[in-house]
Amino acid sequence: MAEPILEDLRNELAQGPARATREAIRAGRWTGTTHGLARGHVQANLAIVPEAYALDFMRFCHRNPKPCPVLDVTDTGSPEFAQIAPGSDVRSDLSRYVIYRDGQRAEEVPDLREHWRDDLVAFAMGCSLSFDQVLLENGLDVAHLRRPGGRIAVYTSGIECAPAGPFAGPMVVSLRPIPKDQLDRVIDVTRRYPATHGAPVHVGDPAEIGIHDVNAVDWGAPPEIGDDDVPVFWGCGVTPQAIAMAAGIPLMMTHATGHMLLTDLTMKDIAQ
Amino acid sequence: MAEPILEDLRNELAQGPARATREAIRAGRWTGTTHGLARGHVQANLAIVPEAYALDFMRFCHRNPKPCPVLDVTDTGSPEFAQIAPGSDVRSDLSRYVIYRDGQRAEEVPDLREHWRDDLVAFAMGCSLSFDQVLLENGLDVAHLRRPGGRIAVYTSGIECAPAGPFAGPMVVSLRPIPKDQLDRVIDVTRRYPATHGAPVHVGDPAEIGIHDVNAVDWGAPPEIGDDDVPVFWGCGVTPQAIAMAAGIPLMMTHATGHMLLTDLTMKDIAQ
Repeated sequence: MAEPILEDLRNELAQGPARATREAIRAGRWTGTTHGLARGHVQANLAIVPEAYALDFMRFCHRNPKPCPVLDVTDTGSPEFAQIAPGSDVRSDLSRYVIYRDGQRAEEVPDLREHWRDDLVAFAMGCSLSFDQVLLENGLDVAHLRRPGGRIAVYTSGIECAPAGPFAGPMVVSLRPIPKDQLDRVIDVTRRYPATHGAPVHVGDPAEIGIHDVNAVDWGAPPEIGDDDVPVFWGCGVTPQAIAMAAGIPLMMTHATGHMLLTDLTMKDIAQ
Repeated sequence: MAEPILEDLRNELAQGPARATREAIRAGRWTGTTHGLARGHVQANLAIVPEAYALDFMRFCHRNPKPCPVLDVTDTGSPEFAQIAPGSDVRSDLSRYVIYRDGQRAEEVPDLREHWRDDLVAFAMGCSLSFDQVLLENGLDVAHLRRPGGRIAVYTSGIECAPAGPFAGPMVVSLRPIPKDQLDRVIDVTRRYPATHGAPVHVGDPAEIGIHDVNAVDWGAPPEIGDDDVPVFWGCGVTPQAIAMAAGIPLMMTHATGHMLLTDLTMKDIAQ
């Protein structure tokens, strides 16, 4: 009988404000992914680093705004995203987290209460779940959302990020096949949302950005590119995690895939 | 005979790339203000703080993007704005600087070579010189630019900035009287340029944001508001300096008024 009750809760949380979902997760009532919850609200990627790395990490994000659009940064030691989710507690308001130590994935945990430290700084960054919602609302065809699981193709590209301190390396990009006759509108719409990766970083031949086999994805599922489609690439929110892991910093905590931070921001709030 | 020669140099630098102006200043060939130089390029406000304050300062700017639109941040100790002015040297490429100690204006100097330290971090922020250029290029009437000296009215408003660490206080705003029939276009055009303060923070009655006498300016010159004008307020680049002074941090260095950093960015580069 558990599944129908969970479906009821999912439907309830889908309609409600983001705060309701954060509270349900904090109370242990919701442990699943956040896809479709608090509709119309921006969901965010999470990255937590020690203060000793926070200035360089913030510089890295500023220099690479397409893959790393920062929505909010906590005060050092504070678990609250005061700008985008007043009253939130980043230690408990996501349903699943991953902890990396010295650049290695160490453990996956349901909350961070036991792992929190007074020197931690949390970053919330725009994610492509919100991005896809914008395309849909503008009547644009989003091929991957019609596929089972809605998974997109994600690659480590040959585009080098602008480095900052220990943070350096290639940009991770997502590929969406876009019908030729929708290309201009898709670019125009996404440009208005720099907080969810903005305009594409590349349009056309994948080889030009170092991707020689589109079927060899690094994350997600291979794309289905139709005869009338153009491959279009956007900066991907996996970039800052990949870069921080490669830098081998002693500690980093992130959301687990699909278990995002629900923010009080609406898509209208972040439109330019 | 000095003046005609200076005018020749000004005309030469007005046409040339931003790099030419930076080099002329570095070589001591140009010591004046930068108004009208390297036309089409973004001129920037400068704020330099010790690394110990840089993360909080960057958080402050991120939380208050309208008055504090960060264009670039140097690596700690590096004098180069590598993103927006490759090859620049922030110690010598501006024609005049102000040094603040413990929140007090201490001295005005022609370069920072003797004052530089390995723990300094420099921030470049969008400024309203570029902003006015955008209005002009869009055929919009910019009343204050037709006045002698082109000075605008600037006030400390009643709008509180979102604080970060020691940085807290009211937003400084600029007032431009805009003809009613141009209001919508002015808002639309400026919204596209978040890097030069973006859309207005307030339109209409100055008292609503704590400004009870528009003739009592804190900086600049009182406005001339015509019968068909609406007072329109934007976040002002004086804000971060005023906030850092109020915080009384031990050391801050800035550009002197009118002596801006010339960047390689064009207005097209920063349009959303």
